[in-house]
Amino acid sequence: MKLLKVDTLEEARKKLHSAVQWSLLDTEEITIQSSIDRVLAQDIYSPCMVPEFPRSTVDGYAVIAKDTMGASDSLPVFLDIVEEIEIGYPSTHVLKSGQCAYVPTGGMVPEGADAMVMVEYSELFDEVKVAIYSTVSSGSNIISIGEDRKEGQLMLKKGTLVRAQEVGTLASVGIETVKVYKMPTLTIISTGDELVGLKDQAKLGQIHDINTYAIESMATKQGFKVKQTYVLKDEEELLQKAVSQAMEDSDIVVVSGGSSQGKKDITAKVLNELSQPGVFTHGIALKPGKPTILGVDDKSKTILIGLPGHPAAALIVFQLIVVWLKETFEERPKNIQVLAKMETNVASAPGRLTCQLVKLIQSNGAYIARPILGKSGLMSTLTESDGYIFIDQNHEGLNVGEMVYVHLL
Amino acid sequence: MKLLKVDTLEEARKKLHSAVQWSLLDTEEITIQSSIDRVLAQDIYSPCMVPEFPRSTVDGYAVIAKDTMGASDSLPVFLDIVEEIEIGYPSTHVLKSGQCAYVPTGGMVPEGADAMVMVEYSELFDEVKVAIYSTVSSGSNIISIGEDRKEGQLMLKKGTLVRAQEVGTLASVGIETVKVYKMPTLTIISTGDELVGLKDQAKLGQIHDINTYAIESMATKQGFKVKQTYVLKDEEELLQKAVSQAMEDSDIVVVSGGSSQGKKDITAKVLNELSQPGVFTHGIALKPGKPTILGVDDKSKTILIGLPGHPAAALIVFQLIVVWLKETFEERPKNIQVLAKMETNVASAPGRLTCQLVKLIQSNGAYIARPILGKSGLMSTLTESDGYIFIDQNHEGLNVGEMVYVHLL
Repeated sequence: MKLLKVDTLEEARKKLHSAVQWSLLDTEEITIQSSIDRVLAQDIYSPCMVPEFPRSTVDGYAVIAKDTMGASDSLPVFLDIVEEIEIGYPSTHVLKSGQCAYVPTGGMVPEGADAMVMVEYSELFDEVKVAIYSTVSSGSNIISIGEDRKEGQLMLKKGTLVRAQEVGTLASVGIETVKVYKMPTLTIISTGDELVGLKDQAKLGQIHDINTYAIESMATKQGFKVKQTYVLKDEEELLQKAVSQAMEDSDIVVVSGGSSQGKKDITAKVLNELSQPGVFTHGIALKPGKPTILGVDDKSKTILIGLPGHPAAALIVFQLIVVWLKETFEERPKNIQVLAKMETNVASAPGRLTCQLVKLIQSNGAYIARPILGKSGLMSTLTESDGYIFIDQNHEGLNVGEMVYVHLL
Repeated sequence: MKLLKVDTLEEARKKLHSAVQWSLLDTEEITIQSSIDRVLAQDIYSPCMVPEFPRSTVDGYAVIAKDTMGASDSLPVFLDIVEEIEIGYPSTHVLKSGQCAYVPTGGMVPEGADAMVMVEYSELFDEVKVAIYSTVSSGSNIISIGEDRKEGQLMLKKGTLVRAQEVGTLASVGIETVKVYKMPTLTIISTGDELVGLKDQAKLGQIHDINTYAIESMATKQGFKVKQTYVLKDEEELLQKAVSQAMEDSDIVVVSGGSSQGKKDITAKVLNELSQPGVFTHGIALKPGKPTILGVDDKSKTILIGLPGHPAAALIVFQLIVVWLKETFEERPKNIQVLAKMETNVASAPGRLTCQLVKLIQSNGAYIARPILGKSGLMSTLTESDGYIFIDQNHEGLNVGEMVYVHLL
């Protein structure tokens, strides 16, 4: 048996990252409506002040704050109404002491005014005079020019994942399109002589292919464009043909399966033969996920990845390597994790980073992380889990009660 | 000024939930590949055992465990090789004491065998004899029949949000399609005389419409199908026409804007006049989100919702009311929140439930929740936030250091 040195997860990531000498992520300009869940490929500066005029946040009277000094329920101040502002139109007066103007919510506060009195604290005296029953301070109930955004201010950073509020912010300054990273294209190949398609009846000794379906779903959700999926028998020639074809139109080719020793060698061999400089990682000190193969081809600019055959391990390695790489190139801030308390002790795997599946349980105002144990081939462990935690290879394990960060799956 | 009694968030939710007397969520049958991020509308039972045959998790020899008793590095046990199982094919022998069979990873373990010895702990003696250098216990390195799923076992519950691992689980038992809830259809209407479209230049006193873009994005992400969006001037007739048209093809109609007192009355009036039994909530004791209007029309089976005009408030109320309602009908388990420690004191709004925006900061192995303060009209507060926390109306507020659950936005 050929023993190859395995990398730590960190070594493997570092090698892969530096092996990709080309720009994995092109950019494209898309409408803000379609940018949800995409990642900004540019810093965005506000092209204008938001708001561009002082806006009232209430229905009421624009006043000069010091005119209202001393006004109260029992002792109103009387002001002359010089204008009634309509929403959507500019004010035309400059307010002087003793004057006020009616402004609806969202309307423009006239020049000279520095506060709004809510209509609830006023009473019309006659057509042109109003009693003000409240003292307001300068700035009250007004959003001033540029209070939300200053012109030229960095509004959204490169690497921002666009949510509804970012779309709203872009609309607020009149931006119609944004530059985002293109979705990397992906081909998924699942190999194994025991695999049959979903529509086929599995005979004794055969199983339905899981990996093309599960990986396609995860990839789609994580912003990859799946070009093609294949379920292949474990034959060198078939694999060779599918991989070379995939290298023509995909940024990333993942081959899952071939987890038995002989078969794994074939995957590594095929990936290495088709690529230049080729395969550089022949295993990761990770549980689950040891039989992971990484390589690149500079000419076709393709990343080649051999995933473990076990579906749960394949999904976890896809997350830890492929999704990680995309997010790293996108310069995205770290995802939010969930802090939880270990429900039981868990041992680490000797000499390997352990990726332990856990279920989150809310209890007494805190989260408990319950390890979901089971052989790595079992899909049920993965569906029962909310996420995973890392246990360092230099750690004995985790103790009950210890606080851990759970990465959601 | 007409004072209408406002509901608490809980009262408003209860009223809305019980007012919807029809089935808001139809179901549809879709392929498992397209079911990612959808919600199962049926319990799913495993139609078969997974695996259907005992599978080896290693490359090696299927043995009768007690035959290996006492075997060690220095003292091997010799067994007769009676078969070499090919992956994807059934075994044909029944193992007897003193016999073994070669089985690759994922291959079928023959009848009679109850453990696998890894190939690393064996040595071929000749064509038909192998030396075993390790004692294994019964069940070692085998996934037994039904160990992942038993036939007839509840595999995925109704209300499950489908992730990649659920797709994989469905594939593993050969299920091609699943029944999920249909995406509710939605029309979004934004009203305001100050609003101009994205492509138009905003004149002094005017602003770009934000709400149709922000709400459409949130709705799409949360699994609604947006039928149509409108940006309308604040005119009763225009609103009437748009709402009645929307009621014909949308399950839910949201109207944002009209936040000034007079305009708000128009939205409530129009929604009430067009519906039967009509509007039942004229405001929620919620900060932000007071000017929220809720009603239903039984005949067209439409839910009518007036949202606040302020974009941040509109998005939060959309989340708290519309998304909440969908998730409640889907019987989804509660979303995972993030536990964090308050960075500062925050006051609650007297008599109103406060929905306080916060940013999460990782510090010393824990999350700190930093309140993002600012007037509710500011979009910048929302883009800076990772989520929100609730502060009860009967609470004075929150103290620095207090633990809170953050709902991610």
